[in-house]
Amino acid sequence: MSLECCAPIAREPLSESDAAELAALLKAVADPVRLRLLSIIGSHAGGEACVCDLTGSFDLTAPTISHHLKILRTAGLIDGERRGTWVYYRIIPETVNKLGALFAPMAEPARADLGLAPA
Amino acid sequence: MSLECCAPIAREPLSESDAAELAALLKAVADPVRLRLLSIIGSHAGGEACVCDLTGSFDLTAPTISHHLKILRTAGLIDGERRGTWVYYRIIPETVNKLGALFAPMAEPARADLGLAPA
Repeated sequence: MSLECCAPIAREPLSESDAAELAALLKAVADPVRLRLLSIIGSHAGGEACVCDLTGSFDLTAPTISHHLKILRTAGLIDGERRGTWVYYRIIPETVNKLGALFAPMAEPARADLGLAPA
Repeated sequence: MSLECCAPIAREPLSESDAAELAALLKAVADPVRLRLLSIIGSHAGGEACVCDLTGSFDLTAPTISHHLKILRTAGLIDGERRGTWVYYRIIPETVNKLGALFAPMAEPARADLGLAPA
């Protein structure tokens, strides 16, 4: 067993179906605009933001931003709620946590797991 | 401040340069074959595997697998070392940890951070 690495992705071979599902989720975040959108929405007051809060941070048209928001929403990374004129978006923590769980550092293996006597 | 969410990606707006760097890294892992390759390499005996250990898990030719390995290697997710006939690949934990850090669940915020009196 490796002493070095590392994350649950390195613990056991991923099944084809799990790999397909995770790859789709990763494709949704693998874009600089969408990463920035997630970070702006998540860090905005109250943990939510409308398109009106987002357009100022980008040299992009509102329809382009809406297109990226739709990809995030389809992937289950954000949800939107219409209140009055605007749709307010917030991050869905459960989906972000799936990615965190995949790449999170694992605890140091116990010495017994390495076939070593207790220290 | 939101009580719910969640990961460092939601803590503050990402800069354009950080977002570009992270998006490139995420694109490298946002593929079912490359996710499975990472998981097989990382969980293989000794934390390393050669192409000879990998081909049996895929309905893909060796050159196609080599192409995916090259993308992972270029992104800094794996490294390879030639020993005799084969190149042996292992995960670079520091790069995987960058993704883990981006999406890792954050600790519960302290009550003071929420503007609340101590319990």
